[in-house]
Amino acid sequence: MPLLLLSLVKRVHGFSPVLRTRHQQWIRFASSTVNESEEKAALEERIKATGDQIRALKESGASKDTFAPLVQELQELKAQLDPTLAKPTKKTQQPKKQQSSEEESDFITARSVDYSKWYNDLIRVAGLAETSPVRGCMVIKPWGMSLWDRVRTELDAKIQNRGVENAYFPLLIPKSFLSKEAEHVDGFATECAVVTHHRLTADPDGSGLIADPEAKLEDPLIIRPTSETMIWYMFRKWINSHRDLPLKINQWANVMRWEMRTRPFLRTSEFLWQEGHTAHATAEDAVEEARAMLDVYADLCQDLLSIPVVKGVKSPSERFAGASDTYTIEALMQNGWALQSGTSHFLGQSFGNAFDVTFQDQNGEQQPVWGTSWGVSTRLLGALIMTHSDDAGLVLPPKVAPVQVVIVTIPPKKSDGPEVQQKLDATVDDLVEKLRAKGIRVKVDDRDYVRSGAKYFEWERKGVPLRIEIGPRDVQNEVCVFKYRVGDVEKKSVPLVDAPEMVESGLKEFQSALLERANARLQDGIRQGATYAEMKSLLENDEASEYNGPGLFLVPWKCDADNERKIKEECKATIRCYPLKENQEGMHKGQKCFYSGEEATHMALFGRAF
Amino acid sequence: MPLLLLSLVKRVHGFSPVLRTRHQQWIRFASSTVNESEEKAALEERIKATGDQIRALKESGASKDTFAPLVQELQELKAQLDPTLAKPTKKTQQPKKQQSSEEESDFITARSVDYSKWYNDLIRVAGLAETSPVRGCMVIKPWGMSLWDRVRTELDAKIQNRGVENAYFPLLIPKSFLSKEAEHVDGFATECAVVTHHRLTADPDGSGLIADPEAKLEDPLIIRPTSETMIWYMFRKWINSHRDLPLKINQWANVMRWEMRTRPFLRTSEFLWQEGHTAHATAEDAVEEARAMLDVYADLCQDLLSIPVVKGVKSPSERFAGASDTYTIEALMQNGWALQSGTSHFLGQSFGNAFDVTFQDQNGEQQPVWGTSWGVSTRLLGALIMTHSDDAGLVLPPKVAPVQVVIVTIPPKKSDGPEVQQKLDATVDDLVEKLRAKGIRVKVDDRDYVRSGAKYFEWERKGVPLRIEIGPRDVQNEVCVFKYRVGDVEKKSVPLVDAPEMVESGLKEFQSALLERANARLQDGIRQGATYAEMKSLLENDEASEYNGPGLFLVPWKCDADNERKIKEECKATIRCYPLKENQEGMHKGQKCFYSGEEATHMALFGRAF
Repeated sequence: MPLLLLSLVKRVHGFSPVLRTRHQQWIRFASSTVNESEEKAALEERIKATGDQIRALKESGASKDTFAPLVQELQELKAQLDPTLAKPTKKTQQPKKQQSSEEESDFITARSVDYSKWYNDLIRVAGLAETSPVRGCMVIKPWGMSLWDRVRTELDAKIQNRGVENAYFPLLIPKSFLSKEAEHVDGFATECAVVTHHRLTADPDGSGLIADPEAKLEDPLIIRPTSETMIWYMFRKWINSHRDLPLKINQWANVMRWEMRTRPFLRTSEFLWQEGHTAHATAEDAVEEARAMLDVYADLCQDLLSIPVVKGVKSPSERFAGASDTYTIEALMQNGWALQSGTSHFLGQSFGNAFDVTFQDQNGEQQPVWGTSWGVSTRLLGALIMTHSDDAGLVLPPKVAPVQVVIVTIPPKKSDGPEVQQKLDATVDDLVEKLRAKGIRVKVDDRDYVRSGAKYFEWERKGVPLRIEIGPRDVQNEVCVFKYRVGDVEKKSVPLVDAPEMVESGLKEFQSALLERANARLQDGIRQGATYAEMKSLLENDEASEYNGPGLFLVPWKCDADNERKIKEECKATIRCYPLKENQEGMHKGQKCFYSGEEATHMALFGRAF
Repeated sequence: MPLLLLSLVKRVHGFSPVLRTRHQQWIRFASSTVNESEEKAALEERIKATGDQIRALKESGASKDTFAPLVQELQELKAQLDPTLAKPTKKTQQPKKQQSSEEESDFITARSVDYSKWYNDLIRVAGLAETSPVRGCMVIKPWGMSLWDRVRTELDAKIQNRGVENAYFPLLIPKSFLSKEAEHVDGFATECAVVTHHRLTADPDGSGLIADPEAKLEDPLIIRPTSETMIWYMFRKWINSHRDLPLKINQWANVMRWEMRTRPFLRTSEFLWQEGHTAHATAEDAVEEARAMLDVYADLCQDLLSIPVVKGVKSPSERFAGASDTYTIEALMQNGWALQSGTSHFLGQSFGNAFDVTFQDQNGEQQPVWGTSWGVSTRLLGALIMTHSDDAGLVLPPKVAPVQVVIVTIPPKKSDGPEVQQKLDATVDDLVEKLRAKGIRVKVDDRDYVRSGAKYFEWERKGVPLRIEIGPRDVQNEVCVFKYRVGDVEKKSVPLVDAPEMVESGLKEFQSALLERANARLQDGIRQGATYAEMKSLLENDEASEYNGPGLFLVPWKCDADNERKIKEECKATIRCYPLKENQEGMHKGQKCFYSGEEATHMALFGRAF
């Protein structure tokens, strides 16, 4: 590109990069967080503005290449107005790099500038997920999927160790099933995807396909938002005697809850999860199961993901629809907001009664059955991102990292003979073999068309815990260079002979250092002794986009759904949980409720939440 | 139960067990294989007949207990007429065992009596799967799920070894996507579940819930029958340069194809599968990928499941909708029918063109992209069942068996002191530990409320490869008793000290013996040199229910879609494939087509198929 043209492009972009980035961010954000009509209006406004920009550039005599990115942006905006119907336009011969600048941008907004933008940028640049042409549904890309697959493998083993067996239940549920449990239907009927037909046919007007009126279902089906109803319908068949109890079933599945405001991983219409469902002979057994699974989830977060959590029980108004008690683990994100990261429900007899499930006890008497259900979802990946990552990109605990060590080879000079390359290759092969023998996930980046610096940035963005650099001179000196993603980030020269041992111990330290750091943040982030007025002034204007927000408030509280609702209205704060530890210790005893001034019944943890 | 009454029940059941079993079988079969109106009529007839039986018994003065099972059957039949709306009736105090005799029946129809019934019985008694209240969708029970999970784990590693990465794409697809590829839409539009609304609301007439007319989607969505369209839509964003190729993506997912005639595992509306999708710079690379994946599937079948397969390519009329070539593995079931067990498609440029995906080559030119897709599903479990199992139940190759060895302990006599039980327990614990150390999946069945004989039958039905019996006398003699599920089935006394080694080698032999046996059956089951008249007379009246049917026919054939269609009409036989081996060897050269008498272009494998 001629220098002048380059400077023009720079000027165009120099004038507008912030603006452009904002537009893109805003559009991406908007497309998943505001309602349809607002979104449309905003898009139309953007389309007009971008069109004006292009016209202005044209009039100023700029070349086609100069404004091609804007044209592309304009096309993308138009496609967003109706992505599903837009026939992709035939590509021109110009390189696509310019066409899809948004998708390929490496720019990450600083957390302090806008935490929400940072989150979306990070998901893009780390290649974790992408929006799809179906509203509210995301595409989980390989790097993100690999994280979830590892969570799945680890958690599945823990679940099976508790004597739970995997099974699979239908995706579709007769809509009448929902109504069987009165609270359950209230909780889910308003966010159901409804299947009404089983065939498409040509539209008589010739314009495409329509749901075939001849293939209308007599009774519509819904896509499962959760499977209690289907599973308890089957439990009725499977439970006869006390010997059939406890019955513990788990399924790994996709579920769908139609959401108007979505954020990747945190809130999407379709998400992946596991849902466990158990049936017991006594209430005590069921409660014990629900609490034991809460411990499993908390341990998973801490041991695998280095995420410390607060274990607690939900207030009555925050319970799962149909539960007697909902246990929760709450994690604290870097912006001071809480993220409910897993729940475990004691269902009492609600679904047992709704589906008429009983068992015959040792004395031949029919007895009611007690239930639990519990789940964690791809939401955990949102918690992972917002616990450890920084302005340079993702930060991954080694145990969950798809790649734990990346080896970047420094290519020999052209003047070096082929034996230099051979010796480098042999050294790297040997190191890789030794690391793999220790069970370490290692990748060699020897792409010859990418500069080393670009590789460093790329793997930092992707959160690989340790980078090892090795070049011809290192081989000669029998050393390599270690660089950790966070913590002790100084480059360090390490004798090759010691490298495998040091990688192993270094990754272990890295894992626990992340947990310690996150734990310190969690402890700092829980404020005690605040008055309601103080909490209100701190929270009422707090936004998700604000980095380092005020955090959580642990306060004495008299359980009261009306007051809870009022507080939510006044400062958008909710009771995240009644923490198990403080409540078991009776910390609230003798204290007055921070809101009503009455005798406190619980210690409550308040905060803003995703 | 008084002796007289018992004999009466026996008589009632003695008179009708075959009849009852037939009814139940027939009903279960019918509910999944015939169309709705036929099904309804048949059910109504059954309800009437069962009602008559009950009335007759009542009139003969039989007690309530005697005809309670028939009453239960009647209720079940009525529920089948409209399972989704039926509020479960409150249970009475009578034991449920009598109520749900169908579900708990251990009866397996002999293969020679009715192979289709045998298949359904086996799935029930082995606890593999169950019909669900949603038409055509099954519940996969823990024993079946464990088989699929093992297939998944093994196959996933093989897929990743080929440089394919896992990802996840939305369940829902805009209906307009289907139309982008002309053949694809023809293949799938008629069997789509269509989502038209995103909310339920109370029916104004007060009778329940309806799809909320206010929440109608502007453009309906379909539940994915397969994901080529969604994935190629994303590929367009991800593929720019030759450096982005090959792009190899896989997803493990549920898919839905609305089926009118279903059979568990073989053909269900919803099923689980993996679908791989790859994009390549050249046709050669894509074909190589498609064929390499076919080899992966064939190896998986042979090595893990002991299922030998014929690798081949489909005739043009049997290709996947949108493919240039469909490769297939075909397995031969015990009834002589073929089962397509996995397919791998060379897509040519069809989806690349439909979604306008191109890449920039080394010279800066835009080039078209070539594709493949490939998948195996829970159908493989049907192949597994119908390859090895027998009249006593499931037979599982050790590599896929959830439990490889079951240890049944023979309880001490009451006169024995507690030290006998202790010594038995210690011996069993020691054996279990040694087996687990070898990576063997072992289960101890020490239930004290089930007789040993019943345990033997139960684990045989479930297909556990090896049973070890051990009791106080064995402990004293330092031996245990081995009994294999098939093959060398004589009980064998084995010194405890040798047992772990012998289990290990025995399971290996068992695995390969199953493959050999199945392979011999496959070789025997492919008939060569038959005339068309011979094939027709053998196949035209062949049914799935007939054990040991005529099998497959390898014949010289001139590729011709019209003749293929005629043959299908005349004797229901289809071309399973053009086998790779025989066609590569040019076996058809110089031969005349067995149907048209013209110059043969291929060797074709004809047969009936599930």
